[in-house]
Amino acid sequence: MPLTKEQADEIERLRAEKTQTLRATVPALEELLYHPLPVLDHGFVRVVDYMGDDGAVVQAARVSYGKGTKRVSEDRGLINYLMRHRHTTPFEMCEIKYHVKLPIFVARQWIRHRTANVNEYSARYSILDNEFYLPAREHLAAQSETNRQGRGDVLEGRDAERVLDLLREDATRNYDHYAEMLNEGADGKPADPGRKGLARELARMNLTLNLYTQWYWKIDLYNLMHFLSLRADAHAQYEIRAYAEVLLHTLDRWVPLTAQAFREHAMGGVRLSATALKVVKRMIAGEKVDQASSGLQPREWRELMAVLGREPAAK
Amino acid sequence: MPLTKEQADEIERLRAEKTQTLRATVPALEELLYHPLPVLDHGFVRVVDYMGDDGAVVQAARVSYGKGTKRVSEDRGLINYLMRHRHTTPFEMCEIKYHVKLPIFVARQWIRHRTANVNEYSARYSILDNEFYLPAREHLAAQSETNRQGRGDVLEGRDAERVLDLLREDATRNYDHYAEMLNEGADGKPADPGRKGLARELARMNLTLNLYTQWYWKIDLYNLMHFLSLRADAHAQYEIRAYAEVLLHTLDRWVPLTAQAFREHAMGGVRLSATALKVVKRMIAGEKVDQASSGLQPREWRELMAVLGREPAAK
Amino acid sequence: MPLTKEQADEIERLRAEKTQTLRATVPALEELLYHPLPVLDHGFVRVVDYMGDDGAVVQAARVSYGKGTKRVSEDRGLINYLMRHRHTTPFEMCEIKYHVKLPIFVARQWIRHRTANVNEYSARYSILDNEFYLPAREHLAAQSETNRQGRGDVLEGRDAERVLDLLREDATRNYDHYAEMLNEGADGKPADPGRKGLARELARMNLTLNLYTQWYWKIDLYNLMHFLSLRADAHAQYEIRAYAEVLLHTLDRWVPLTAQAFREHAMGGVRLSATALKVVKRMIAGEKVDQASSGLQPREWRELMAVLGREPAAK
Amino acid sequence: MPLTKEQADEIERLRAEKTQTLRATVPALEELLYHPLPVLDHGFVRVVDYMGDDGAVVQAARVSYGKGTKRVSEDRGLINYLMRHRHTTPFEMCEIKYHVKLPIFVARQWIRHRTANVNEYSARYSILDNEFYLPAREHLAAQSETNRQGRGDVLEGRDAERVLDLLREDATRNYDHYAEMLNEGADGKPADPGRKGLARELARMNLTLNLYTQWYWKIDLYNLMHFLSLRADAHAQYEIRAYAEVLLHTLDRWVPLTAQAFREHAMGGVRLSATALKVVKRMIAGEKVDQASSGLQPREWRELMAVLGREPAAK
Repeated sequence: MPLTKEQADEIERLRAEKTQTLRATVPALEELLYHPLPVLDHGFVRVVDYMGDDGAVVQAARVSYGKGTKRVSEDRGLINYLMRHRHTTPFEMCEIKYHVKLPIFVARQWIRHRTANVNEYSARYSILDNEFYLPAREHLAAQSETNRQGRGDVLEGRDAERVLDLLREDATRNYDHYAEMLNEGADGKPADPGRKGLARELARMNLTLNLYTQWYWKIDLYNLMHFLSLRADAHAQYEIRAYAEVLLHTLDRWVPLTAQAFREHAMGGVRLSATALKVVKRMIAGEKVDQASSGLQPREWRELMAVLGREPAAK
Repeated sequence: MPLTKEQADEIERLRAEKTQTLRATVPALEELLYHPLPVLDHGFVRVVDYMGDDGAVVQAARVSYGKGTKRVSEDRGLINYLMRHRHTTPFEMCEIKYHVKLPIFVARQWIRHRTANVNEYSARYSILDNEFYLPAREHLAAQSETNRQGRGDVLEGRDAERVLDLLREDATRNYDHYAEMLNEGADGKPADPGRKGLARELARMNLTLNLYTQWYWKIDLYNLMHFLSLRADAHAQYEIRAYAEVLLHTLDRWVPLTAQAFREHAMGGVRLSATALKVVKRMIAGEKVDQASSGLQPREWRELMAVLGREPAAK
Repeated sequence: MPLTKEQADEIERLRAEKTQTLRATVPALEELLYHPLPVLDHGFVRVVDYMGDDGAVVQAARVSYGKGTKRVSEDRGLINYLMRHRHTTPFEMCEIKYHVKLPIFVARQWIRHRTANVNEYSARYSILDNEFYLPAREHLAAQSETNRQGRGDVLEGRDAERVLDLLREDATRNYDHYAEMLNEGADGKPADPGRKGLARELARMNLTLNLYTQWYWKIDLYNLMHFLSLRADAHAQYEIRAYAEVLLHTLDRWVPLTAQAFREHAMGGVRLSATALKVVKRMIAGEKVDQASSGLQPREWRELMAVLGREPAAK
Repeated sequence: MPLTKEQADEIERLRAEKTQTLRATVPALEELLYHPLPVLDHGFVRVVDYMGDDGAVVQAARVSYGKGTKRVSEDRGLINYLMRHRHTTPFEMCEIKYHVKLPIFVARQWIRHRTANVNEYSARYSILDNEFYLPAREHLAAQSETNRQGRGDVLEGRDAERVLDLLREDATRNYDHYAEMLNEGADGKPADPGRKGLARELARMNLTLNLYTQWYWKIDLYNLMHFLSLRADAHAQYEIRAYAEVLLHTLDRWVPLTAQAFREHAMGGVRLSATALKVVKRMIAGEKVDQASSGLQPREWRELMAVLGREPAAK
């Protein structure tokens, strides 16, 4: 994730200008404001703005004239209560804005979360940089044999080599051809004056899905947590999960009480179906239950046993 | 709009605490942060938080590493361009949060704008205050005779008196009965120990639609302008328009370049239909056009003439 | 819920016109199409249109060229899988439209669900009917002493009588004054020719919150279930729950496999926090756990014990 | 757009099954239900379901018990009125669902419209087909020299040849390598038993942005028109405009009165800024106005002259 000197300078300039404000401010988040937090081989997440803090959640829940907060212990209790009972609207009262650099195939998963605002770098208007994602060795996984949308063992030796070669060569060649079709020199004039360049909006179709794009992404706290509950989850594809984990780190800094409640009730919690709840009650009563007598399908049974830490569920 | 001493003190405390921030800050908006701006007889609008400024619109449009802004003249030009060509997403990158006190019948119109976040004071949980809206004399209008959803002449003399008496007496009586049914004393104990109070969530149904409620309302800049284009418009009911005008005032302070472009392209602009455009072209060519030859329906014709300042359109 | 003869006739006309379609059709839902299903004393829910069926969920999940369905058992399995793993988008592919008549205070809770389309009867444009909600005796509850937003015991005897009298008299008087202020006769002319009527948009503010309004409400299947999971829940206010239960009945008819999965995973299921899950694991292992050793707050502990059917949780 | 025999058979089966319904039905749309309407070289649009018709707009606007419609002329008038005055909610009461096959770079523009429901064919779960978009000769345009996001002249001769060769070869090679990395035979077993295949969710990153994907896309009538006003516009990229034009054709069949009003007020209409309106008034008054005296920027001036048909605006 090398920034150009110009980019790094712009960030430095932003970080040099402090102003005074009457708004709620979060020093722990200000510390990393504007800094790029690296993700994958060339990606990053930058917090570029935020609105509100844990107190703003409390303030909105109470529709108060002032801060709404009383003591930390009371705020913590209220935030836990809101989370537990799915009173989601007070969490919508905080907002955060990120600048993210990410591979296009990750961007395509990400954008499916519609309750957010997005401005993406335009490849109709501008020329994309030559940076693409190559998985690290330890993430070069085979297709799972049990889960149609999962990964199995890591590829090794020549199998891995071959894949990395193909990905690198194809992305490189396709970018080179993209540049050739554009035919734009550094000075904005044709690189080859003897021919016309293809329109940017057309040339981009030759690029591969691992090329990096970037966008501004703004979302409220409730929807950020919803995104994280799906994308920081073990079932999410590794590449988007890598981003979700960095976002989760910024959540901890921004709204520590909310983040804690989120880990307790959403990330670390589980949902039991009506039938699964019956099974749990029987087990607590000391009864031996097996899949056949549980009323659960085999796959549901394995998932429940995994949740209860009693045996691993096949994926 | 009398605040209690406790409420005023809370606001003073908030305004006394300045902190430092690296975020974009708007001094002209900070000046009125937290202060209640009066609307109608007991209502108000308070700006309680904001995110971004004109520069943030530019920054998002350019997906920049730094501020994105260059010179004011360039920013102004870009913002005008975005507004003119309906590139709305950069305007979604700013956010503002209000605390609003408003009559319930106004709240019912307002809430129809769904792309916003709301936390309303809960009458299931709490007891509402005894404050209701009474129109000022000059807004006590008769039903329009030409527009089924408009106002006509102002009522006068005994007609006006009678209406105000009815509104005042009914709202007062209904509130008194609400309090009687609740049967809650100031100390939280039954006012009349001999009987049980009705549940708050039921008692509230006796209140009239002019009673004041309040909420926190958070919205992005694009959707705020969409709200204003409908609610600061002459066709909007006066009571909600009174709120829209105060919001418009906060817009001017918050994002002056955007507000100017909004007034130029949305508030002060017009939309012409295909047929109306043809009429305009013929008129520019010096042709005399009347309704019969215009291809427009009579009402459309009157609306177009009004837009062109050629004769008043009946409402 | 007495319909006028004219309204009943309109419904009969609609039910008399069958047409042929190539679209997915659900006979069990067609049976009750357009019929008003009564709710509360004067309200109703009418299904006025729908799009898709259980098969459409399967079809979307498979992005298929045909129906997507195979056998009922496979469809059931897939729908359960989607529900269990929160793959919500296939459920968004079905849509339903209702005509609902409901008290204004219920409408105000209902409208908080923003992911739906609404057209409400306009009191700016039209005159509202004189129908208001009076709770049945068995729903006339006192304020709960343990839950600030709940109900306690039912009021009895003279306490109940007094409340019903107040609600009835105030609603009646306020409506009469509304009509007086409007001053519109049945023929559209002034009832009292000696004075001007107040604008409809103003006169309505005198009405009470238990007056009935009506709207068209359209929502996709996923968001309908989200609405039901909150509003058919025991914590919801009785009056909106009465509507949710009728909606739930239409869900059963419309998409029986989805409805079954919804009852199994959402309505009948539970969410356990990370700490609650630890408690459950210890209990299954045969350990005695009490609140003090559980790591849960007293209220959380009571809620968990209630879920596990071990002792009633105080509300 | 060759369908496989299996796909064509599935469509035939769907079209063979008529059922009776009480819902509003649109014969002109039923005629093309399920049929693929070709777009670009391999893409299509299929209408797979719909809800409502012109009458449903009227019905919702009137919150009626029956059809709401009276005579065609009245319905037309009401629909025009709603469109002209931006009463958008009645148009949200109709819904349509499409199955679309489209290049990934088009899908990336399309998905930016968030107020719709989408289920995309999953390349985590399944293997994509080997079909990619190659522009027809007449669409192989050079970069515009005046508009940074537009097209200029069409490429010719060897320039065009070279571009088409590059696009074809790179897409073909990258797909072949995708298949090689997957290493899946037609029978689901490894094509080369000596090595492990790469996970589908990873292999896909080697594909080019002109590869075809497909999705189910469901949207309400209001938002469909909003999409069309942006994407059937001359400023939209040709490739997405090709889809928008087919959607527009389905709109004409589905809701002819609404489609007509949409063409009159949105597609064929114009928006004038406050300053542009002043210019128009002066021109109608017979005054000579030029850019310098207009108060408009040069670009705005050119755009206005183009709208008024007085001279071509440079793009």
